[in-house]
Amino acid sequence: MKLNAKILGMESGGSPVVVLNVEDAEDLGIRSDSRVWLQLRGKERIAIVNLAERVVEEGTIGVFDEVAKALNIEDGAKITVEVAKFPKSLQHIRDKLKGRKLNEEDLREIVQDVVDDRLDEIELAAFVTALEAFGLSIDEAAGLTNAMVDTGDRLKIKDGPIVDKHSIGGVPGDKTTLLVVPIVAACGVVIPKTSSRAITSAAGTADRAEVLMPVALDIDDMKTVVKKTNGCIVWGGALHLAPADDKFVQIEYPLSIDPLMMPSIMSKKKAVGAEYVVIDMPCGRGSKLKTIGDANLLAKDFIELGKKVGVRVECAITHGEQPIGHTVGPLLEAREALQAIMRKAAVPDLVDKATHIAGMLLELAGKAKGNGQEVAMEALKSGKAEKKLRQIIFEQGGDSEIKPDDLEVSKYGLDVKAERKGYVLWINNSALIAVARAAGSPKDKTAGVQLYKKVGDAVKIGDRLFTIYADKARKLKRAEQILKEDPVMDVAERMHMLVHEVKESPLHKKSFILER
Amino acid sequence: MKLNAKILGMESGGSPVVVLNVEDAEDLGIRSDSRVWLQLRGKERIAIVNLAERVVEEGTIGVFDEVAKALNIEDGAKITVEVAKFPKSLQHIRDKLKGRKLNEEDLREIVQDVVDDRLDEIELAAFVTALEAFGLSIDEAAGLTNAMVDTGDRLKIKDGPIVDKHSIGGVPGDKTTLLVVPIVAACGVVIPKTSSRAITSAAGTADRAEVLMPVALDIDDMKTVVKKTNGCIVWGGALHLAPADDKFVQIEYPLSIDPLMMPSIMSKKKAVGAEYVVIDMPCGRGSKLKTIGDANLLAKDFIELGKKVGVRVECAITHGEQPIGHTVGPLLEAREALQAIMRKAAVPDLVDKATHIAGMLLELAGKAKGNGQEVAMEALKSGKAEKKLRQIIFEQGGDSEIKPDDLEVSKYGLDVKAERKGYVLWINNSALIAVARAAGSPKDKTAGVQLYKKVGDAVKIGDRLFTIYADKARKLKRAEQILKEDPVMDVAERMHMLVHEVKESPLHKKSFILER
Repeated sequence: MKLNAKILGMESGGSPVVVLNVEDAEDLGIRSDSRVWLQLRGKERIAIVNLAERVVEEGTIGVFDEVAKALNIEDGAKITVEVAKFPKSLQHIRDKLKGRKLNEEDLREIVQDVVDDRLDEIELAAFVTALEAFGLSIDEAAGLTNAMVDTGDRLKIKDGPIVDKHSIGGVPGDKTTLLVVPIVAACGVVIPKTSSRAITSAAGTADRAEVLMPVALDIDDMKTVVKKTNGCIVWGGALHLAPADDKFVQIEYPLSIDPLMMPSIMSKKKAVGAEYVVIDMPCGRGSKLKTIGDANLLAKDFIELGKKVGVRVECAITHGEQPIGHTVGPLLEAREALQAIMRKAAVPDLVDKATHIAGMLLELAGKAKGNGQEVAMEALKSGKAEKKLRQIIFEQGGDSEIKPDDLEVSKYGLDVKAERKGYVLWINNSALIAVARAAGSPKDKTAGVQLYKKVGDAVKIGDRLFTIYADKARKLKRAEQILKEDPVMDVAERMHMLVHEVKESPLHKKSFILER
Repeated sequence: MKLNAKILGMESGGSPVVVLNVEDAEDLGIRSDSRVWLQLRGKERIAIVNLAERVVEEGTIGVFDEVAKALNIEDGAKITVEVAKFPKSLQHIRDKLKGRKLNEEDLREIVQDVVDDRLDEIELAAFVTALEAFGLSIDEAAGLTNAMVDTGDRLKIKDGPIVDKHSIGGVPGDKTTLLVVPIVAACGVVIPKTSSRAITSAAGTADRAEVLMPVALDIDDMKTVVKKTNGCIVWGGALHLAPADDKFVQIEYPLSIDPLMMPSIMSKKKAVGAEYVVIDMPCGRGSKLKTIGDANLLAKDFIELGKKVGVRVECAITHGEQPIGHTVGPLLEAREALQAIMRKAAVPDLVDKATHIAGMLLELAGKAKGNGQEVAMEALKSGKAEKKLRQIIFEQGGDSEIKPDDLEVSKYGLDVKAERKGYVLWINNSALIAVARAAGSPKDKTAGVQLYKKVGDAVKIGDRLFTIYADKARKLKRAEQILKEDPVMDVAERMHMLVHEVKESPLHKKSFILER
């Protein structure tokens, strides 16, 4: 059936939606919420059907923006519309719902249909939930990884070895990548780093890096930067590397589960051609992995998965009970990283973590033998790393002369002071993230939290513990409100032994960490 | 925020959708695919947000028909719109995703939010999938049953005992209820039967009954009919009994899973006040339960669930390898049932099944003691059952004088004849259903399949095996096509031992049976 397009000027927020007149829908033999197959000038697409009696006349098809964009539809275009065939991958999803293991071919069909928007939200949600419920075997994770790589673009760089790093996230203020990339690149190793914006955190690496330089490069520009400098720090979202993952994340996030974490991470690394990868696993209360035991098990799986997909993986299990450095929020973190790489401020935990991970990468790439961290530290101390960072900033189109003082925080600030003396006993990561997000981070780049004290520090009454920065008084107010409900820091003379009392069935507000 | 309503004249096909202008959405602080809380004249509703730049102007809210209907919205109505609060039940769903058992309070909150449309499709799909993956404990099934009853309307009839029956479905041509209800009611036992239309089958009991009488009664009319006749056969869809189930079915159906079968069935029975229930479990290849062992396990669970929710349950495990009687399709089946109850045609399997189940109900209700089937058979033979059926038809607004010959099948017919002699070795239920549905059943009430032979019958070359009826030549053609791909009946001299060969990983086209 041929129908005339009518651009509706509406967004569904993701799903490809079209609106048919009830008469046309009847003729096609479809009900609302069914799928149609659309074709225009050789391009095709599956879309979800809504029905209309008035807005869309007979012979016309109303298209939402997502569909109009995908097929380059203009008002009046003659679109071929047919009932969509039952997606074969749905049978595999149904098998998974019964607890069956899927083979690589099955997974490939699912991922292809995800990329082509042939599965709707119900089906995607069922698939993701079934993966969560039944778990993924290493073979399934490998199959998904390969399928996700093959259904997207790839970065092809000839000179190797190519290394990469990734953090599974959860620790606020983790600006490690901003140091690791220049250190590694300065030592002559290729590290084409893509990163994400914050999903549940107060700042993603892409948000931090964007304070210093443009990060929304396309794949050709990314390649040019890497060729000139050995490294880059770009936002992965615009690159179409393993694009299925972006759709899975949209389902995982509202459900607070991420069964696809391993294939997601691994596929992005493989898509940039990485041969050696270090996975950072921050560990401890308030981070994604609660125990070192959990971290070890996950590390084993990651290494195993790496073997299956041809990537040599090592894991760094790191302390994750409190923020890295003293800052949370894109600008504050970028400034602290810049100070650290310029040796203008001592940020010992950040430097230790960054040089450790860089050292592991250098050893994997054969640039060091048992003394990776020393080599990394030398690159930092000698100024080679700073020079490399500035070169990367320049090549990505930023101001390579940028100084920490150029970076100004939001104008509204709220000092939080100690009400008793003692020691900082703990910092609540998720409360800290909630406060920073309420203050505007990461959307308002200059918002965030500056810490003055960390765990174990001695505190006197009236000492400033931290400052919250926000662009708007309203947002600062909201951050303050959240702070009252959920304390960020505990100061006491001796260890408080009680976490909390449980007197009735608790509604546990569990924070969920999703970083890609 | 107050916004002016604009009726869009569009249906989403279920989900409550509204369209906001991007500016208003920004002011509210929501993204597309978020939820808003709407209020108009004391009524409230949660809706999913789509965004628009042109179609819906600032200060205006576009509403889909589902929302307009729910809140009685007219063009220009001033609607209060706020960001919806995080539904508490979502935390319970997240717990279930982790494999946790839910308690009755948790389940009640989920079901209430389902009824109030506070959960979106992703969340519902995840919940249903998690129930499928982790299974329901009997306590969870009981909690869901009670919650589903309490969130809907109930039929209140004072005189007891009240009995009910239900088939878990899967056998084509199962018109048993059309006999059971009048038999039981004729014996002085109250049986307020609600039934469903076909979901995956060629005819639901409501579709069959509708050939003889109106079935879309409201709850008051249903009560009147039951008071006058002891029974009724009405469509449950318009009654708001356990309405959560209708939403669960919309998720279960596309996923081909029905983890909520037990609470769904039990809640509908409890909602009409049934104290004694017989569950019919057709069993065997081609029906929902493949083995008698499966059926026994399910029966045990049903009886157990009944105990928990205060309903005495017995189960009838019945033969389900081939159709009941010789007809498939609403009119053909209604006619056959009418002939059987009038003793104008011998339909021995139907009569045996109906009198058995009716007998079990009569014994449960104390109207028989060990001789239930005899009492039921007597009601049939004496004409009491026919008289009762005609009384019910009359009270529901149908023609109580209706004769089998008044019921005319579709005008297009296709005879399928035996190409070799031998015996009917098997009938493929799902192929038969597919053929009947392709021919137009259940939407075209007069379409369907008339069988002349059943399993074990001797066949000569050229004997008619069955006739397919359709309203339109096009539909008959489609049915014929499907018949070619998937044979309905096998005729052979000796038993063929091979089912089929498997030479490579098969894509099993499994049929899914969902009847409520």
